[in-house]
Formats: sequence, structure tokens, C-alpha cells
Amino acid sequence: MRQRNKPWAKDMLAENPQYVIASPESNKGKWREYFGNDHPIHIEIGTGKGRFITGMAKQNPEINYIGIELAESVIVSALELIIEEELPNVKLMNINAEDLRDIFAKNETNRVYLNFSDPWPKKRHAKRRLTYKNFLSLYEDILPEKGEIHFKTDNQGLFEYSLTSFSEYGMLLTYVSLDLHKSEYEGNIMTEYEEKFSKKGSRIFRCEVQYR
Amino acid sequence: MRQRNKPWAKDMLAENPQYVIASPESNKGKWREYFGNDHPIHIEIGTGKGRFITGMAKQNPEINYIGIELAESVIVSALELIIEEELPNVKLMNINAEDLRDIFAKNETNRVYLNFSDPWPKKRHAKRRLTYKNFLSLYEDILPEKGEIHFKTDNQGLFEYSLTSFSEYGMLLTYVSLDLHKSEYEGNIMTEYEEKFSKKGSRIFRCEVQYR
Repeated sequence: MRQRNKPWAKDMLAENPQYVIASPESNKGKWREYFGNDHPIHIEIGTGKGRFITGMAKQNPEINYIGIELAESVIVSALELIIEEELPNVKLMNINAEDLRDIFAKNETNRVYLNFSDPWPKKRHAKRRLTYKNFLSLYEDILPEKGEIHFKTDNQGLFEYSLTSFSEYGMLLTYVSLDLHKSEYEGNIMTEYEEKFSKKGSRIFRCEVQYR
Repeated sequence: MRQRNKPWAKDMLAENPQYVIASPESNKGKWREYFGNDHPIHIEIGTGKGRFITGMAKQNPEINYIGIELAESVIVSALELIIEEELPNVKLMNINAEDLRDIFAKNETNRVYLNFSDPWPKKRHAKRRLTYKNFLSLYEDILPEKGEIHFKTDNQGLFEYSLTSFSEYGMLLTYVSLDLHKSEYEGNIMTEYEEKFSKKGSRIFRCEVQYR
């Protein structure tokens, strides 16, 4: 996502600790306590401007959502949205996904969402793709047995790569749509990016995979 | 494939035993002997008018090909093509794929091709799809360890179904293209159907899967 310079972003994130978790590592092993309930925790990696995660939080009040985004100038838009909606079941973390093991213990999250992740099309950048085996190992370490990843993208190359990467990792493909917006799938919450590019005619690919 | 009535087909198939194997069961366990060499044996299930299998046989003289097709009035066109090309490494069998276990022993074939198989779109007909688990079990019984299926189709629903069916069966997805004719894949031999429908703009899906 293109980032505009927003010098005030850092301050705004710091001023809203009820939504932007300042020291997420300190909650490791204690996330149920933090939320004050036993609801499942679903995380979105690369949450962007937060439209998906807030839409999901509104649709499913019995699930806790955490949106993770590294870019301050982007996640601040997600914060604005959450403040406006006053949703109690969605939080944000301004961290690098590579640090997830420091933040969650095994079984502490219940599902991972990856939406329109950076495709890193060059082969030598394959390790940076969020569906590369090192990341699949990372998610496995914070998910329960048979934990799920739900993934959508308009990038055909990334989707092809990801299907084989999931399979090579030994994961089970339980659902696949090669044209989401023409499928029978119900309850889809669009990201900002998804709305923009599907209007231009891009096909959206989506799948659900499960650790075995 | 639409079938025209060809009352002469049965006779023509019987008159060309050098190409159309009359009693394939009698070769079970002896296929290397039958071909007179140790070359790998690749089979295509639903060979139609035979353009793919003869094209592959020309491209790869060191591989033996067997095209399987139930419809007499269709396989007879494949026979005409093989007679014309005088290819020694391609044979035909006018049988039902369900009988493959009676024809081949374990390890006797090396690869299975499925091209533009009937999609059987109704859910209650799922068992008839050539990528349904019972068929995957059938192919496994005649392939070696890590034997491969190469599958292509223009039918999105069948492709989506097949990806999950392969995965549920525990197979490894080693290659996937969601737009074969725009991909970097080389050496693609088109079927009659593929040429016709890709000209009309249909996207061709292709994958390779392996038993584990």
C-alpha cells in the first residue's frame, strides 16, 4: 500500500492505548485476561486501513479481532475507523509479523487472516511472502491444532505460489474460490483494496487452509 | 464430448489390434513385455479424439502412452490419427476407467493425465468426477510411490473441487497455473477441446499433484 507521510501518526497511536496495544509482548499467555472473555481471537496480518477487521468485528461480536500492521501512516486510518465505530472487540498492533512468537503463546489465537498481502513477485523475494514456509511455521506456533488461515488476493502469481506452499507445508485445503465475487460465498467483507480492484474487473482468489 | 453415431466404429476398432488393445486385462503385470521396452507408461483417462496423446507421443518417443476412452464413436477418431501418424509408442483402450485395477498392477503406470474431464456439476454426481476420492484411490493402485496426476480443465468449478479433493486425499500440489496459456509453461499440447474453448477466451487451469 502506498504510504503518505503522516508525522502525527505516531502520537495518535500512542494516545489511544485502549485500541492500539502498546506493549503486546506483556500480554503473552494472558490474552484471554486482556480481553476479559474467552472468545476466540482472530488476527489479520497486514490490516491496512482496517476496513476488513472492523467489518468482521461488527459482523461477529463474539469474536475478538486484532489487526497487525507495520506501517504507522496506514494503521492510523484503521484507528480512526475503530474510534468512530466504538467497537470493543477489535484492537490494533503496530508491529512486525515476524515478532508474533514473542506476542502470542501456542493456542492463543484461533485464526489468521491474510488479505491482499504484498505479492513480492521476484523469486529472490519469495521469503518475504506471508505464505512462505517460515511464516506458515510462525502461524502454526500461535494457532491451535487444526488452526486455520483464510487468505484472499487478486494476485494470481501469489495465489498459485501460496497453494503449493500450503500443500508443501502439509496443510489441508478445505475451500477454494477462483472468482470470489461470482461465487456463492456469503458474508464476504471487502478490504479497501478489494473494492477498488474488483470494480476494475480484477478476479479475487480466496482459500481456507488448515494445519493437520 | 458430443457423440455422433458411427455404426462402423466397433469394426474399425476390432480391425486394428496393433493400436487398440483388445483384451487389456491379459497384459496385467506384463505391460513392459507388451511394449517390448522399459520406458515409462503414461495414461490419459478420457482421451477423446486423441490429439493430446498423439501429440505427447510424438514429443516424447521414449515414453509409452495409452489413451483410455469409453465412447467408441470418439476413440475411433483417435485411432484414425494414430494410423495416420504411424506412432509406435501410443496405444488405445476402449474401456471404462473404473476397470483400471483389472488392467494394471501397482507400479505398472508412471503418470495419469486428466484433460477436460466431464465436470459433473451437480453435487449428487460428485462421485462421477474423475478427481473424486474413489478415482484417486484407483490411480494410486496402479501408480508407483510419488506417482503423479497432471490435470487441466477450463471448468472452474471442477478445478476448485479437484484442488480440495487432492488435498483431502493427502496429495502434494507441486504445480498450479490459473491461466495456462498466459503462463510460462512450455511444451503444452492442446486437446481439441482446449483449442476451441481457449480461442473463445476461456481460461485454462492446470495442476500437477503427487501421491505422498
